[in-house]
Amino acid sequence: MKKDKDNLHHMTPEEFRSAGYATIDWLVDYMSDIEKQPITPSISPGDIRASLPNHAPEKGEEFDILLKDVERIISKGLTHWQHPGFYGYFPANSSPPAILGDLISTGLGVQGMLWATSPSCTELETHVLDWLVELCGLPKQFHSSGNGGGVIQDSASSSTLCAVIAARERAGGSKFLTQMCAYISDQAHSSVEKDLLIAGISSDHIRLIETERDFSICLEKLNLAIGHDLNNGLIPFFVVGTVGTTSSGAVDDISGICDITKHTKAWVHVDAAWAGSATVCPEFQHLLNGVENVDSYVFNPHKWLLTNFDCSAFFVADSRPLTKALSIVPEYLKNSQSQKGKVIDYRDWQVPLGRRFRSLKLWFVLRSYGAEGLRSYIRGHVAAAEWLAGEIAINHKLRLVVARSLSLVCFCHVDGDHASEVLLKKLNATGQVLLTHTVLSGNYTIRVAVGGTYTSKRDLEILMKLIEKNI
Amino acid sequence: MKKDKDNLHHMTPEEFRSAGYATIDWLVDYMSDIEKQPITPSISPGDIRASLPNHAPEKGEEFDILLKDVERIISKGLTHWQHPGFYGYFPANSSPPAILGDLISTGLGVQGMLWATSPSCTELETHVLDWLVELCGLPKQFHSSGNGGGVIQDSASSSTLCAVIAARERAGGSKFLTQMCAYISDQAHSSVEKDLLIAGISSDHIRLIETERDFSICLEKLNLAIGHDLNNGLIPFFVVGTVGTTSSGAVDDISGICDITKHTKAWVHVDAAWAGSATVCPEFQHLLNGVENVDSYVFNPHKWLLTNFDCSAFFVADSRPLTKALSIVPEYLKNSQSQKGKVIDYRDWQVPLGRRFRSLKLWFVLRSYGAEGLRSYIRGHVAAAEWLAGEIAINHKLRLVVARSLSLVCFCHVDGDHASEVLLKKLNATGQVLLTHTVLSGNYTIRVAVGGTYTSKRDLEILMKLIEKNI
Repeated sequence: MKKDKDNLHHMTPEEFRSAGYATIDWLVDYMSDIEKQPITPSISPGDIRASLPNHAPEKGEEFDILLKDVERIISKGLTHWQHPGFYGYFPANSSPPAILGDLISTGLGVQGMLWATSPSCTELETHVLDWLVELCGLPKQFHSSGNGGGVIQDSASSSTLCAVIAARERAGGSKFLTQMCAYISDQAHSSVEKDLLIAGISSDHIRLIETERDFSICLEKLNLAIGHDLNNGLIPFFVVGTVGTTSSGAVDDISGICDITKHTKAWVHVDAAWAGSATVCPEFQHLLNGVENVDSYVFNPHKWLLTNFDCSAFFVADSRPLTKALSIVPEYLKNSQSQKGKVIDYRDWQVPLGRRFRSLKLWFVLRSYGAEGLRSYIRGHVAAAEWLAGEIAINHKLRLVVARSLSLVCFCHVDGDHASEVLLKKLNATGQVLLTHTVLSGNYTIRVAVGGTYTSKRDLEILMKLIEKNI
Repeated sequence: MKKDKDNLHHMTPEEFRSAGYATIDWLVDYMSDIEKQPITPSISPGDIRASLPNHAPEKGEEFDILLKDVERIISKGLTHWQHPGFYGYFPANSSPPAILGDLISTGLGVQGMLWATSPSCTELETHVLDWLVELCGLPKQFHSSGNGGGVIQDSASSSTLCAVIAARERAGGSKFLTQMCAYISDQAHSSVEKDLLIAGISSDHIRLIETERDFSICLEKLNLAIGHDLNNGLIPFFVVGTVGTTSSGAVDDISGICDITKHTKAWVHVDAAWAGSATVCPEFQHLLNGVENVDSYVFNPHKWLLTNFDCSAFFVADSRPLTKALSIVPEYLKNSQSQKGKVIDYRDWQVPLGRRFRSLKLWFVLRSYGAEGLRSYIRGHVAAAEWLAGEIAINHKLRLVVARSLSLVCFCHVDGDHASEVLLKKLNATGQVLLTHTVLSGNYTIRVAVGGTYTSKRDLEILMKLIEKNI
């Protein structure tokens, strides 16, 4: 960092230190005051843009003006995802150690596309993913000591896309694309269908398998669909089991899926984007029964394990179909370590070439909280959700639509869809909570996804009081 | 931020402030001392992992221990991409305002998948990309006021994948996949081929068009290839023009490409991942002549516009084929603003669902440096590279393999490949510089990609002295 002549002025080290402290102070203030803000901003489309000048400035501006504009303009249009009353979608965690681990990654500005482009970036990633295998009781095929291992992707969407591409490769590659069929439940996340379409699978070869009353995949229907396609000369190449669906937290029977697929060559992928974090607690590891027979697995520490987005942990039992499909090595990326084959080059495990040093934030989280802290965190949310589900169950104006799944509670108003929709609107209008909806078996359903970094039983008591008041 | 009972301990606001200051201090020290470190670490595969414990800790650890371990373990295995002597690949910029803008994004922890999930995230992104359209003299079809507009992706790989998918959609969708052909020069970036394969295009339908002596695409051969495929009933659906190739900085004739494709329905995509940043200077905007007729365009401010990775600016002339291909709307993502159609939901412009608030760092950069500062930055690098190319040209042991392109200088030893390879190894062994190689017309070529945030003429003088010493 040094000053330059002319119009280029980099901050000096002392200017950067001072601006850095000011930014940290702003974040401390933001988090300290977050409960005083309405979670959802009261603005209309275009309002934020209307506050911004139409042109980039010709001359550089001082840092304190920028920070003031974050407060003056940007913060007016934020939905506060870190507010403890945020129960929408699935929460996306942010925690102090993750924020600071990520800050170091940003400051270092290294690229982890190859081992050779910054060895620590690759080795720490392999290492903390191995830690996760142990911590979550995952089977040994996902440990880097064998043919498989883990990699951090930006999202479950991207992780599942990689699974699709590896599966396609193993099934013969794009030559056989028009014969390939995929199987997902009608409750699987929309990103799975999107990934299949991106990979060139025709929409009429994506089998949406019906679900049971608990919204888990119907094994009988899955078996029939696969058998039917095999009889027609098609190639069942990809089956997804979801552990913790978005709408209701339903858990597919992974062992049952593997029993059906074991006589086929289909790749089985398990999407536990949300629920996977719960397996840091031994008492929730049974949710993954059967995962020792699958080909790939994804869960997102950025959802419910205190690690900032983006941090999706993707594991494959055998990395070879993946790297065979995704490795293209031009001259300008060749290097002796890669050619010796003794290192992992994560660029071959993902779509993009470039990659951030994302394992730093995960490492900071695992060490700052420790296994004990992470278990306590998950258990706190599950217990709080259990309490909420109990309160809803005994309220005669409300009905649990499905049994609580971990920390996800789905309920409705007994008077029907309209009453439920009105209730949701009233709750969100308080500004103290944010809830989103889904539709289950045709019924409008309010979801309470408990999982914010700072959400505790106390916050659910506030929510329950708001529900009772607005019912 | 609050303390909790049991084993869960979040940092208090004051603990976070103190840890945040310490992290900023560490980064200031890191950057201040960076020139004292060898750019490339002297370690072997496995060394970093060997310094790390085999298991995640059971109990949480104090933040200062983590920071010490970054220094003690992680920094020993870093390639220092922000060292001013870094000339490898293409540099990936990091600057103080970008680091701090990104820190705010991380701290806020909002998701920008929909306008409704945090309006500022969407609106600032649209706004700063419109600023870029003006700043870089891009044609108006890339401005959000029409049918097209810009979006920030993680990398040019992902941006180009989106272009491929939109092109595939416009050409009839995956039903016609087996007939689709794509055209790229043999100098196009490897990620383009990777993207085509991901989208299900067969490798024998990817036409690698030969290049001219200056390594730009041969228009005559492109024309012949397209004509040949049309005659065979195939569908030319995607053509890439590169402005600034990775190996030599070659610039394809975009106008010429568009003249050829205008009678076809092919989608023309321009990849200016590296060189695009130079167009903040009016004198370099001619490189994009013809871009007013193309369908999509990408350049990466994270390469050479002082904005930390990841920040790839992707523009489409018409967003409809893109969003038609990538939009799947399950019940749990429906909201009134999206249904009214008056907002942009960027999840439909990319592969992943989740997305960070990446425009904050770009906004901070554009405002901190101002247009003047950015132009001065680019001009400084180009002038320094021009000086270096001049020194190399007059040195009788060295030869410029191609003419300098912007800030990229490609040279070799006159004694041939072995001498060039030895020279590169000797230079990198000094620890003061990092250079990488390519092969041009069969010749081993040393690349000097000038573009580090803190790289100036003074650093190139050091490099030239090292070259003269090790020649």
